[in-house]
Amino acid sequence: MTESTPAGPVAPSAAAAVRLRPLGVGQVRITGGLTGEWQRRTREVTVPGAVDLIQSTGTLRNLEIAASTAEGEFQGMHFADSDVAKVIEAIAWRLAAHGPDDDLHKTIDHWTGVLERAQRPDGYLNSWVQTTAPGRRYAELVSSHELYCYGHLIQAAVALDRATGDGRLLAVARRVADHVVAEFLRGGRPGLDGHPGIETALVELYRHTGERAYLDQAADFVERRGHGHAGESDRGSVYLVDHEPVRTATTLNGHAVRALYLEAGVVDVAAETGDGELLAASVRRWEDTVAHKTALTGGHGSRHLFETFGDRDELPPDQSYNETCAAVASIHWSWRLLLATGEARFADLVERTLYNTVAASTNVDGDRFFYVNPLQRRPDSTPPPKGGRRRPWFRCACCPPNVARLIGALGHYAATTRSDGVQLHLFVPAEIRTSDSVRLTVATEYPDDGRVRVTVDATPTTPWRLDLRLPAWSAPHRTALTVAGTPAGVRPDERGYLVVDRAWRAGDTVDLDLDVAPRLTYPHHRLDALRGTVAVERGPLVYCFEQVDQPAGVPLDDLALTGGDTLTARRESGTGLPGPVTVVDAAADVLAAPPRTGLPYGAAHAAAPAVRARVTARAVPYHLWDNRDRGAMRVWLPRSPRHDER
Amino acid sequence: MTESTPAGPVAPSAAAAVRLRPLGVGQVRITGGLTGEWQRRTREVTVPGAVDLIQSTGTLRNLEIAASTAEGEFQGMHFADSDVAKVIEAIAWRLAAHGPDDDLHKTIDHWTGVLERAQRPDGYLNSWVQTTAPGRRYAELVSSHELYCYGHLIQAAVALDRATGDGRLLAVARRVADHVVAEFLRGGRPGLDGHPGIETALVELYRHTGERAYLDQAADFVERRGHGHAGESDRGSVYLVDHEPVRTATTLNGHAVRALYLEAGVVDVAAETGDGELLAASVRRWEDTVAHKTALTGGHGSRHLFETFGDRDELPPDQSYNETCAAVASIHWSWRLLLATGEARFADLVERTLYNTVAASTNVDGDRFFYVNPLQRRPDSTPPPKGGRRRPWFRCACCPPNVARLIGALGHYAATTRSDGVQLHLFVPAEIRTSDSVRLTVATEYPDDGRVRVTVDATPTTPWRLDLRLPAWSAPHRTALTVAGTPAGVRPDERGYLVVDRAWRAGDTVDLDLDVAPRLTYPHHRLDALRGTVAVERGPLVYCFEQVDQPAGVPLDDLALTGGDTLTARRESGTGLPGPVTVVDAAADVLAAPPRTGLPYGAAHAAAPAVRARVTARAVPYHLWDNRDRGAMRVWLPRSPRHDER
Repeated sequence: MTESTPAGPVAPSAAAAVRLRPLGVGQVRITGGLTGEWQRRTREVTVPGAVDLIQSTGTLRNLEIAASTAEGEFQGMHFADSDVAKVIEAIAWRLAAHGPDDDLHKTIDHWTGVLERAQRPDGYLNSWVQTTAPGRRYAELVSSHELYCYGHLIQAAVALDRATGDGRLLAVARRVADHVVAEFLRGGRPGLDGHPGIETALVELYRHTGERAYLDQAADFVERRGHGHAGESDRGSVYLVDHEPVRTATTLNGHAVRALYLEAGVVDVAAETGDGELLAASVRRWEDTVAHKTALTGGHGSRHLFETFGDRDELPPDQSYNETCAAVASIHWSWRLLLATGEARFADLVERTLYNTVAASTNVDGDRFFYVNPLQRRPDSTPPPKGGRRRPWFRCACCPPNVARLIGALGHYAATTRSDGVQLHLFVPAEIRTSDSVRLTVATEYPDDGRVRVTVDATPTTPWRLDLRLPAWSAPHRTALTVAGTPAGVRPDERGYLVVDRAWRAGDTVDLDLDVAPRLTYPHHRLDALRGTVAVERGPLVYCFEQVDQPAGVPLDDLALTGGDTLTARRESGTGLPGPVTVVDAAADVLAAPPRTGLPYGAAHAAAPAVRARVTARAVPYHLWDNRDRGAMRVWLPRSPRHDER
Repeated sequence: MTESTPAGPVAPSAAAAVRLRPLGVGQVRITGGLTGEWQRRTREVTVPGAVDLIQSTGTLRNLEIAASTAEGEFQGMHFADSDVAKVIEAIAWRLAAHGPDDDLHKTIDHWTGVLERAQRPDGYLNSWVQTTAPGRRYAELVSSHELYCYGHLIQAAVALDRATGDGRLLAVARRVADHVVAEFLRGGRPGLDGHPGIETALVELYRHTGERAYLDQAADFVERRGHGHAGESDRGSVYLVDHEPVRTATTLNGHAVRALYLEAGVVDVAAETGDGELLAASVRRWEDTVAHKTALTGGHGSRHLFETFGDRDELPPDQSYNETCAAVASIHWSWRLLLATGEARFADLVERTLYNTVAASTNVDGDRFFYVNPLQRRPDSTPPPKGGRRRPWFRCACCPPNVARLIGALGHYAATTRSDGVQLHLFVPAEIRTSDSVRLTVATEYPDDGRVRVTVDATPTTPWRLDLRLPAWSAPHRTALTVAGTPAGVRPDERGYLVVDRAWRAGDTVDLDLDVAPRLTYPHHRLDALRGTVAVERGPLVYCFEQVDQPAGVPLDDLALTGGDTLTARRESGTGLPGPVTVVDAAADVLAAPPRTGLPYGAAHAAAPAVRARVTARAVPYHLWDNRDRGAMRVWLPRSPRHDER
């Protein structure tokens, strides 16, 4: 089953060593539900807002100054060009998902013109260097990030060409890429960008154009890592993710977004070159990262200082960084590993990250954004500079357009094909068309409801298999599968999918009923920052407790869950959040704090809390937090002294 | 009882509103023991090493360039002058404690000459501004820290004059202070240093010289805080400790060292102006800080990012900052509050901070230093830039000389007088002379041993009282007091002291026997990062568990204490640390980690650890950690599932 429409964000070449093939733009159309709502707010609010901000904050003007069509001084971060590119990519996927829009097309025309005029005749293009130090090309890659900016430009150009057929920006991007190849790959220029990102872009440009040099350049950049080529930083080579070669590194350290973008590039290169060793190294690091360095919400990066990963098992809920861009980058990485291996565990992490960290990064109105996504906020908090409440925009404006480009292309991540059939990874209401002869409709209220119905609207006469991901949180014995009205066994295959292999007829239905009963989740005993706590999850959703939802007069930080069989989920309209929300109520003890005089340490009898009341604590989906007030929030609540673990 | 020798670091004026009077230089001579050893290594290793480094790293040379006696470019931090001053102060107190030293006197002469020549005719003195931007005096106080540097210079000059009678540097310092008064107090110059520190210095210079304008200037700087006078920083006004006036602020936020230096200045100003409201505000913040923002080791500052305090109850053991300088500053603050109020709780915190954070900051050889003092190090850690192992020196070299100046003057903090007698705050082996007619000898092996004998060597015939601090950790019913061979009741007065009020005869002894049996200490339930853990303390010492001391093959992070009555202390010679060490052995369960595949979160049965063995875990005093290898360390160990809290 081959694609029949232009490709989405990731489109491995025909020769690539991948098990699964993504669908093209327009082959998966999200028709509603929660993800449809995310696409709506992105389309109606986030993208138009981002366009305005790129134009009003001086970001586009930097390029106009470089193009000599405006005067003034460079403003913003040195790598601000990347924000222009990310917004273009967000526009591209939004056009792909929802069709033409005159204003957006005009914006694209205008911005492309600026980029064309700013580009030097030899292909070089960077507004910061051109306007402030034109003689210092690639001289400060450790912080100028010219290659990182190119990466976003190339991805935007490929997206735009795929989504709309508008190849003007692609021409700019090819001149950029040709310039890079001439300088670095063929010209022998040393160095490496302090911020990876160009690697995936060059591979995708190779896939889109067939120009092998782009792949070679990407492979070259991947192999340069870990040898100190990124230069000197007082933050160290670990920060630059330049401390260990990609073939030998066993864990992710340093700046989380950089490390994760690099891994996506590693997998892309491995897929296109058939390099099993390279792929295996990345899989090992993914396993280590999942086991030791991933928050329950899928967040990555435990430290505010330099936005880095922490040590293994260092996963604080309060001071974790969990940058929004790291969540997007993590999805890029896991998605590519899913394509390469066909294993559901990678899709599980995509889903966890999407429905929790990515979803929480934007407010319900689509116009405020988190840069940092902690799992706890204390009362009267004095957050670090990038923490705190969602904000309309950032001087370092990487996160909001990063989410917008992901959400616009979300259909891309829902399903894939293989020669023997179709694989469903995300349960979104959608119309899926895998070739001229197969069409599916997915109907579901997921994740509010665990029931997913796939209807085969059109099928060839030859048998093919439908693989449905069985999420790790839905135990087989609590999951039901019904094929054309007949109950079927729930036995995932070795890659984690439920396989329905048959000769289909139009109108056939497959009903999957996943277990979205609320559940208690416990941390591994090595996670020091979470010892003695428990969280509530429901389906793919992590839940959180906000002060505003708790009984009057009960401080959130004195609540302790009693466990047992006390969780109840219900649709609730009076939460102050838009529309009805599925809340989870849980029995909790209210701990009586010992008096707070002197140090908060003492003998057992002095330090032990008493239980002063039993109440019902209420949780809402984590992705909805901070939409009402700036009160306290916790994902992990203490276990009561009389907690029942069952 | 009045002083008869030159004053030590803090010498309230006769009119000051203080309950206790510090003793002068030479009135308390530490004669041995652990604190004597700290003074020895400071004298023999740290101070000579610091002198060499000031001269070899370009720090002195900056001033020589400013004095036009050398050529070259400014090197190091903008406020490097402060390091020169701190080393001078360390030399001053070392000379006071141990007598003359030709090399050090030559160093002082040389450095003073450089400072004299570098100072401008109007009193201005800052090598960074003078060598790089002479027209920009006080233009970048937010980061240039000219006033902060002045503060250290003034303190050094006062110390040197008090310790040695060498008034040359004092003349430089007075010209500096007069310049500040002319510019800021009288000249109406706006602004405020981003880093407090000059406040205590100006008050001490007032005390030393009687010049009231210095006190007025200090009070002026204290009152300017919280109104945005420190300028703009992308780290925010909280970082600059300029977010709330000192009369209304209720908690410490922002950069810990800055906040703590400021508080010391607040108390100094309150004491000298008799401003009870100002004192009460600082006491309230001290109580809040102790209850919510102080590590078991006395450390302050929970966040690496910008070296700041965290929120209330945010006290992570692993990623806490607990800067060495913050510990020194905290002692400055608590000591001044002790003088003002006479309450033992302030001395308790001085002792805790001294014997744990300050003591741990230097290695046993005296030549390597911690900038950051966490309570946990994970195996295979990738520490943040200022974390990790002790280092020989720092580019921002504030911490080592800060400790050296404190340790050199340590006798200052042991005892005080009041019109009715003598107060003993620290239990150090010492000879104390409070006036011509009273002499005491303190003999003790504290903190290894809880027995402290005070012998009255000389006394007037009129009765007077000896107040002995009863540390909060030594319960009255487990403490013994014997006066002249007769058991006495152990009933602390309302300020926390055991009072022996009598007509003394030469040769009288008072024996205090404090409870230094090892004990288990539990955290308050609100301390999320410590939930489910327990620590071991013994007397004033916090203990820690290092991997090197545990049974072979048992990972430190799998140990869980079983509690109950299983702690045993013993002197042990084979630890690999110098001399015999009092170790504490504790029964511990070894937890069997569930397999680490997939996320470290799951249902209770999946996440709960099993107990696979019972072993004896060993703890050593926290201040001795990181002297053997770079292995894992923990102060707080998990409680075993079968932990007995008694």
